[in-house]
Amino acid sequence: MSKKLIAKPIIKEIYAQLKDELKKSIYLPNLAIILIGDDPAALFYAKNLEKKGAKIRMNVTTYKFADNIRQKDLLDEIELLNEDDSVNGIIVQKPLPVHLDESEIILKIDPNKDVDAFHPFNMGNLVLDGEGFIPSTSAAVIEILKFYDIEVSGKNVVILGRSHIVGKPLANLLLRKSKIGNATVTVCHSYTNNLPEITKRADILIAAIGKPLFVKSNMIKENAIIIDVGINQIQDAKNKSRYVGDVDFDDCLEKALLITPVPGGVGSVTTAMLLKNVVYALKRYR
Amino acid sequence: MSKKLIAKPIIKEIYAQLKDELKKSIYLPNLAIILIGDDPAALFYAKNLEKKGAKIRMNVTTYKFADNIRQKDLLDEIELLNEDDSVNGIIVQKPLPVHLDESEIILKIDPNKDVDAFHPFNMGNLVLDGEGFIPSTSAAVIEILKFYDIEVSGKNVVILGRSHIVGKPLANLLLRKSKIGNATVTVCHSYTNNLPEITKRADILIAAIGKPLFVKSNMIKENAIIIDVGINQIQDAKNKSRYVGDVDFDDCLEKALLITPVPGGVGSVTTAMLLKNVVYALKRYR
Repeated sequence: MSKKLIAKPIIKEIYAQLKDELKKSIYLPNLAIILIGDDPAALFYAKNLEKKGAKIRMNVTTYKFADNIRQKDLLDEIELLNEDDSVNGIIVQKPLPVHLDESEIILKIDPNKDVDAFHPFNMGNLVLDGEGFIPSTSAAVIEILKFYDIEVSGKNVVILGRSHIVGKPLANLLLRKSKIGNATVTVCHSYTNNLPEITKRADILIAAIGKPLFVKSNMIKENAIIIDVGINQIQDAKNKSRYVGDVDFDDCLEKALLITPVPGGVGSVTTAMLLKNVVYALKRYR
Repeated sequence: MSKKLIAKPIIKEIYAQLKDELKKSIYLPNLAIILIGDDPAALFYAKNLEKKGAKIRMNVTTYKFADNIRQKDLLDEIELLNEDDSVNGIIVQKPLPVHLDESEIILKIDPNKDVDAFHPFNMGNLVLDGEGFIPSTSAAVIEILKFYDIEVSGKNVVILGRSHIVGKPLANLLLRKSKIGNATVTVCHSYTNNLPEITKRADILIAAIGKPLFVKSNMIKENAIIIDVGINQIQDAKNKSRYVGDVDFDDCLEKALLITPVPGGVGSVTTAMLLKNVVYALKRYR
């Protein structure tokens, strides 16, 4: 087995599964993307979801709004999508213009259509082992661990980063009484002292801090398993732009037992897990 | 300063505060306790809340039901309390008879009256820094750390136990970007390997596993701060019953810098934090 925990075979399997399920389904899933303004990355992401959706018979519709849309009007648009039985999933693309109140917007989305799983009700269910959606990045990390048959139970897992969308949900998931769970979990962040000392104790190190190439080989232990959630755009020496993770892959490759690449690692599985959430919404809540 | 982090001065302050607030309040808070069957400990707890409530002008009403109450009837009773504007807080006493579906019951309670903070919506808000209730045991631990001016930021906090009502909410709270937060948090449990090695690294050790006298002095580091959440009834040599924590207090007292006693520690503050939640509900949601 290669050292690289690549996304490709995982995605292939997930998309084949979803396609197969939807082949037999009477109803087809509908994902609504709310896109405000014309951020090129957000637009690219939406187009990508439309394309990926089309391949599995999922309708992905992007609702575009001007970046001066009023909070109240946006909430009304979400309400319409909430009430529309044909819509199974709703996501609101970031970044949002500063005049909009993000937390009110998230609260407005019907938790049963909240396929990004940013609603507090879904987060609470995640912590309390209730039924609901798992944020797709966290789900992707769990899926990689599962696919590559990595023992998690009883391991020292160190998570770098305490964000609402990765660090915290992942910590709670890895504490669950389940196969990809039962880990001893440590969460580190900007206030952590003696960080390398802590990361060096990790059997599994998960980096999700958004700092390019932050984790070096002298911060990991021999034969650690490294999961890199970061996707950072940097300029290389020739001023060419490229994407790197939070982990210095080249530096850590030799010392690590297994390591996810960037690109082609967690990020690629994340999109698949989001679409899986939409199919789950169709099956479960329709 | 004594080594003992005792509850007494904390409780005194909280009750004085609550009493003072309610002195000026037009409305008085109402807490509804749902008690099923006749478990003596549950009955004692309810009586205690009634007594404590009376001292601060809070009405505490216990609604007793036979232990063969049907799930549907219980849900209807909760609905009545949800709809009653004069009721600010609702708690359902455990243990519940086995024929009742606990998670359905918790989901039924209006999150704005869920002063135990067991509803997923409140747990999600806790994780996502939203507004809502904090489970009273976790709130008590935070309150003790605050009252005794214990530096938490950047410290290695080790939590023993991953329960829904203590370990998990506490881990998420101590990760918050707040004064009693910013800790590097490790959660241990029954699957954790080399436990003493991990607990020995704790600047602050929080025990919440429900195992009497589990933590011994050889599991803590010199000058550690020990918070004992456990309340376990044991029989001593003379067959007399007494309450002890998850920590062997006598054994750890010398080595620890600070330590909470049992009884007279976390448990005593917990009741005060619950009543504080009811007053919060009155102010916030009425």
